[in-house]
Amino acid sequence: MSRHATCTRAWDLRQAIPSVSALPAHNADIAAAADWLVSRLTAAGLSKARKLPAPGDDTHPLVFGQWVGSGSDRPTVLVYGHYDVQPVDPLEEWDSPPFEAQLRGGYWWGRGVDDDKGGLLMALQAIEALLASSPSDSAPSLPVNVKVVLEGSEELLSPHLLAALREHAELLAADVALSADGRQVSENQSGVLLAMRGVVSMQLDVSTASTDFHSGMKGGSVPNANHVLSTLLAGLHDPATGKVAVEGFYDGTLPMSAQDRADAAAFPFDEDAEMRGSGLLGMHGVHGHSTIERRWYLPTLDVVGMVGGFTGDGIKTVIPRAASAKLSSRIVPGQTQEGVVQKIAEHIRRHTPPYANATVSRLGGGAPPWAAARASPATS
Amino acid sequence: MSRHATCTRAWDLRQAIPSVSALPAHNADIAAAADWLVSRLTAAGLSKARKLPAPGDDTHPLVFGQWVGSGSDRPTVLVYGHYDVQPVDPLEEWDSPPFEAQLRGGYWWGRGVDDDKGGLLMALQAIEALLASSPSDSAPSLPVNVKVVLEGSEELLSPHLLAALREHAELLAADVALSADGRQVSENQSGVLLAMRGVVSMQLDVSTASTDFHSGMKGGSVPNANHVLSTLLAGLHDPATGKVAVEGFYDGTLPMSAQDRADAAAFPFDEDAEMRGSGLLGMHGVHGHSTIERRWYLPTLDVVGMVGGFTGDGIKTVIPRAASAKLSSRIVPGQTQEGVVQKIAEHIRRHTPPYANATVSRLGGGAPPWAAARASPATS
Repeated sequence: MSRHATCTRAWDLRQAIPSVSALPAHNADIAAAADWLVSRLTAAGLSKARKLPAPGDDTHPLVFGQWVGSGSDRPTVLVYGHYDVQPVDPLEEWDSPPFEAQLRGGYWWGRGVDDDKGGLLMALQAIEALLASSPSDSAPSLPVNVKVVLEGSEELLSPHLLAALREHAELLAADVALSADGRQVSENQSGVLLAMRGVVSMQLDVSTASTDFHSGMKGGSVPNANHVLSTLLAGLHDPATGKVAVEGFYDGTLPMSAQDRADAAAFPFDEDAEMRGSGLLGMHGVHGHSTIERRWYLPTLDVVGMVGGFTGDGIKTVIPRAASAKLSSRIVPGQTQEGVVQKIAEHIRRHTPPYANATVSRLGGGAPPWAAARASPATS
Repeated sequence: MSRHATCTRAWDLRQAIPSVSALPAHNADIAAAADWLVSRLTAAGLSKARKLPAPGDDTHPLVFGQWVGSGSDRPTVLVYGHYDVQPVDPLEEWDSPPFEAQLRGGYWWGRGVDDDKGGLLMALQAIEALLASSPSDSAPSLPVNVKVVLEGSEELLSPHLLAALREHAELLAADVALSADGRQVSENQSGVLLAMRGVVSMQLDVSTASTDFHSGMKGGSVPNANHVLSTLLAGLHDPATGKVAVEGFYDGTLPMSAQDRADAAAFPFDEDAEMRGSGLLGMHGVHGHSTIERRWYLPTLDVVGMVGGFTGDGIKTVIPRAASAKLSSRIVPGQTQEGVVQKIAEHIRRHTPPYANATVSRLGGGAPPWAAARASPATS
């Protein structure tokens, strides 16, 4: 089936229903999208299609359906997707109405085309097409059993998904889980993602006094929160290696194997083209690794934001009493969100000078890392 | 004369005329304040009182007056002050109308009481009182000749003062210059300021790419402008000595003399009380110097502001392409504003990694340092 035909058939869900999970005003749209999906799963040939009760206080239901006609001796594949989308503000940045599919230059544009209404419908239509292509004198069949679970809270960082998976563990039991949320490597190359780094976020707050000071009166004699913060931030990485300098940060992580190195090297990646396209003067990361190795296998610690003192036009000769930063760490198997936060907090505690306070607090959201076995029959 | 009487007599200039130099809407008030001062100087017994033509495009005139009856064999003292004030916004922060003197708890409150209408009137009233206290059978007399020059653009950083002093050099010629802008050490102790650090300000801009990046997709492999900036800022000081680490920064500055050390040690200063009052956990500066030494004799480099990436509530997993900081350097005799900017720019250039751009640009305003001879007869 051509990409255009796929998208065209799918436009009604993908575009017309504004299933914005973050805005309570759209709760009815979320419900409508879930109902539409139940019908769509049924029409595709799946059975038991229904909404699953929303866990906890989540008002956005999961949608389930299955085809298990291959029998219990065949493996079962669980397909995941999500039908909620991000808010569309600011509207003036859109070249076409966000909830109306528009074809421009061979690509479809609209909220959710890429993430994830297009993705989940491609999986659904693949199942449908395989079932429909069964010889006319035999029952519809697939080489494996299939279960589909679609959530409505992914853009809220899936706060209830884990609880829902546990609650419906028997119904959702499968040998392989496949996420339909993602994209392929390029227009001409598909791929299967076998691992993804997790993420945990933190706030770092520094204070040195109860008031700002005038740099003429007291400059050079009182601590400056900007100096303390920038020194703490600079100390998070070792310039000699490019590695995160937090003690114990890499504990439990596995070294790259020869196969990992070979996989990264074999991946088609045009570094020069990316640099040109992004205006990058150079790549940077842990020394001794390629860009792909750094992205696939190594944990990170990024200062995603920092602010302190006067940041308007011109100058104000102020010595700030407080400054803060937001940190985001991408973590890999062997690391936990809580463990990484604890290690960073301890590192900051040990490096904060006696004339300053510094606190690290974990921010909400995030995700644990995961990795699938490369040698699984499902991926070969 | 009691402080209350002094302030009460002075209230009309100090409070009633809203001579805000920064706001063109107040230009007529500036002119009214200058006219009032001419009358006031005349009434005090000074001669030749008049407005001096404003230099350049400054619309705020200087006001001049003199008493030179001591004769040419006596020294001449030039008294400086300024009659303009800062804007009063935000008005809701005031407990009384800013242009109405109000006595509360033994202190006068109002815009300009402290800076500098009160200060200049105290000097003017001292001259007036001395002239008035001459014996009734002799002509009014002072032990020295006195000239007064009052400007209306100090709160604009005196952009035209130097040109004005040069233009009227003959009229303003004096042996000693005394600024009436400042305050005394404490309620019970007066003092004469013999030196003041200058100041120069800079903007430091760092960029690494033409776009921000997603930390999940590219984290650990692309440069982060926050990392570059915080490392550059941390590198401005040597943690082993507390000194500014910019090469050549201290070139030309004089070491403290034994007399300097003795002066600083003799100055009444309650460090513990200041720390308590400001919520300071500790003092910090160049090692081996007291707080007063650091404030009086040492140049500084402060990061007065810095910002980069996402600084709102929560987290955004962005790797910022740009970050910036504002630097303010207090400089001492032997240093120049331009020289310090050049040295810092060169230091940043040498320490910027190849995957980033960093530029240092000088911001407007500022002042050169000055110091008077401690052994001058005027100060003994």
